Amino acid sequence: MSIVVITPEGAEAAAEYARHTATALPDMDVHVWPETGPLEDVTYALVWQPPAGVLGTFPNLRGIFNLGAGVDGILRDPTVPADVPLMRLADAGMGPQMVEYCLYGVLHFHRAMDLYRRDQTAGAWEPRPFVAAEDRRVGVLGIGTLGAQVAQAIAGFGFKVMGWSRSARQVEGVTTVAGRDILPRFLGRTEILVNLLPLTDETRGILNAETLAALPAGACIVNAARGAHIVEADLLAALDAGQIRGALLDAFEVEPLPADHPYRAHPGIAITPHIAAQTLRLEACRQIVANIKLLEAGRQPQNRVDRGSGY
Amino acid sequence: MSIVVITPEGAEAAAEYARHTATALPDMDVHVWPETGPLEDVTYALVWQPPAGVLGTFPNLRGIFNLGAGVDGILRDPTVPADVPLMRLADAGMGPQMVEYCLYGVLHFHRAMDLYRRDQTAGAWEPRPFVAAEDRRVGVLGIGTLGAQVAQAIAGFGFKVMGWSRSARQVEGVTTVAGRDILPRFLGRTEILVNLLPLTDETRGILNAETLAALPAGACIVNAARGAHIVEADLLAALDAGQIRGALLDAFEVEPLPADHPYRAHPGIAITPHIAAQTLRLEACRQIVANIKLLEAGRQPQNRVDRGSGY
Ligand SMILES: NC(=O)c1ccc[n+]([C@@H]2O[C@H](COP(=O)([O-])OP(=O)(O)OC[C@H]3O[C@@H](n4cnc5c(N)ncnc54)[C@H](OP(=O)(O)O)[C@@H]3O)[C@@H](O)[C@H]2O)c1
Ligand SMILES: NC(=O)c1ccc[n+]([C@@H]2O[C@H](COP(=O)([O-])OP(=O)(O)OC[C@H]3O[C@@H](n4cnc5c(N)ncnc54)[C@H](OP(=O)(O)O)[C@@H]3O)[C@@H](O)[C@H]2O)c1
Repeated sequence: MSIVVITPEGAEAAAEYARHTATALPDMDVHVWPETGPLEDVTYALVWQPPAGVLGTFPNLRGIFNLGAGVDGILRDPTVPADVPLMRLADAGMGPQMVEYCLYGVLHFHRAMDLYRRDQTAGAWEPRPFVAAEDRRVGVLGIGTLGAQVAQAIAGFGFKVMGWSRSARQVEGVTTVAGRDILPRFLGRTEILVNLLPLTDETRGILNAETLAALPAGACIVNAARGAHIVEADLLAALDAGQIRGALLDAFEVEPLPADHPYRAHPGIAITPHIAAQTLRLEACRQIVANIKLLEAGRQPQNRVDRGSGY
Repeated sequence: MSIVVITPEGAEAAAEYARHTATALPDMDVHVWPETGPLEDVTYALVWQPPAGVLGTFPNLRGIFNLGAGVDGILRDPTVPADVPLMRLADAGMGPQMVEYCLYGVLHFHRAMDLYRRDQTAGAWEPRPFVAAEDRRVGVLGIGTLGAQVAQAIAGFGFKVMGWSRSARQVEGVTTVAGRDILPRFLGRTEILVNLLPLTDETRGILNAETLAALPAGACIVNAARGAHIVEADLLAALDAGQIRGALLDAFEVEPLPADHPYRAHPGIAITPHIAAQTLRLEACRQIVANIKLLEAGRQPQNRVDRGSGY
């Protein structure tokens, strides 16, 4: 029985995952790919964006652990063995970071910081009218592990928050709705939209000309999930038409975002380099180790990905 | 007995103050300046930046109510009668707004949003290392009515917060220190500095070459108090030297900030047009009415300004 760590984050990151795991599971050999030991000994793989085909070379794999919350990347890879349980990280230190990022984004638009930024260089001085947080309607797309924490924190800060999910959910202080049918109404009352959906066949391109038009004119967007949730050309058109006032974007279809991408020069867009929430490695390893112990005991692991729904 | 409202905010604002006050004190006549009724009947004045000399024309004034938290403007006016009690607003709806503004400012620098903003147009993609809120040291200058709420909220959000005041104060979750002697040590441990001091003889120019140099290199500043707390040339020099990384500024020595002021074009500075916290008029009138009742009953009013200390 051995473990292999495969990540493009660099030798230091890989060594940290290996160290935490080896300490907690002293009976297992832990390797950092491309070093693997005997291929048939490898029972668990900790992976982030593994090179295509690599996972198929381990004949006795019992579990694949994705070193992030979103599994859209790994599910797109047809060479990842489909019969081996795939687990994702739930929170793993990402919750508080995501709360910081999304609350920042909401305050940014709520307090018109985007407009003041433009006024600054334009030489203007134009205080915008005060709007109480209680009168500001925020909508959160996706109220799972991260979205629920974000929605609850934003509501706790005083905003009027509604959350949208696939199945019915309850989140303290938040009005929740579920299902595709209600989406237009959810969007129609949302002044600031926060996206925390996973990227699946159902959610790809969910923010497009039609759904952006369903938001009230002048709505703002905080995207902390995946770039492909947004149809880029549609967002740019909606910004130029004034239908959308501004967007804070952390993730993009192509990363790093190219230097000449139109998002960069657009006055209505603020970008960050996929930093909304980073995996905390020690916390991630605690989850993975606990799951390996469950699997070894023949029990159901936590946070197993449902390949049918894609998250 | 009558009340006069004097404010440059416009007829609508003045009428709102008059209406709330008249409703709560049906026995009093309420006038909006320049209409006053008989001068000798005027016993209370609600003022914001009154024209020089006006308050001296009411011989029977029993109380002056400043329609804001900061009284630096009114104390600078030598024609304001010195023997009449002067009251300021405490909170009056400003607390939650100030918490929003200052938490936004702290998150802005904590999450390197200022740096990502520059990277955006420069074509760069450079994720900055993650720092947990617990490892980020925030310092709040002034922990009075507003500063205490701000310090407590920032601490509640997870940051390591220290507050500085003139006399010893206690604020939940916040380490507090007092007095000028400790200021260099307070500054030495502060990565993000929030200013919520009143403007007095002692605090004018408190952020100058010497105190800015006492901050750790690369520190950031959120100024939600008064422009004259900062020596502008010293801040610009410290920014250019890299001693200060960035500043979010809401108040200025001259307002509106001139279109050609060097702050506007500086990449390290973000400005807002004195919007951190606006007085909520209904709430302000509740405070004022309660104070008029105390004064009429011969009792001590709340929030009386100590002309000796200047706040
Ligand atoms: N930018 C970053 O730094 C960063 C960091 C971490 C994560 N992320 C992104 O954040 C995403 C969310 O993470 P998480 O851990 O919170 O995921 P999660 O726990 O799986 O929650 C996903 C939520 O989205 C809802 N959802 C999924 N498909 C839906 C559909 N078709 N219609 C309506 N609702 C749908 C789910 O509904 P149910 O509750 O009904 O299942 C659930 O509420 C990740 O997938 C990743 O893309 C980004
Ligand atoms: N930008 C905006 O929109 C806006 C809106 C409202 C207010 N403001 C500004 O915010 C300021 C603070 O308002 P507030 O209602 O919180 O005032 P406050 O209740 O009077 O509190 C002032 C705080 O500053 C401290 N302080 C005063 N002089 C000091 C000195 N020489 N050394 C050390 N500490 C000193 C006081 O110490 P003690 O506790 O020992 O007395 C107190 O903690 C106002 O004066 C105004 O300038 C700005």
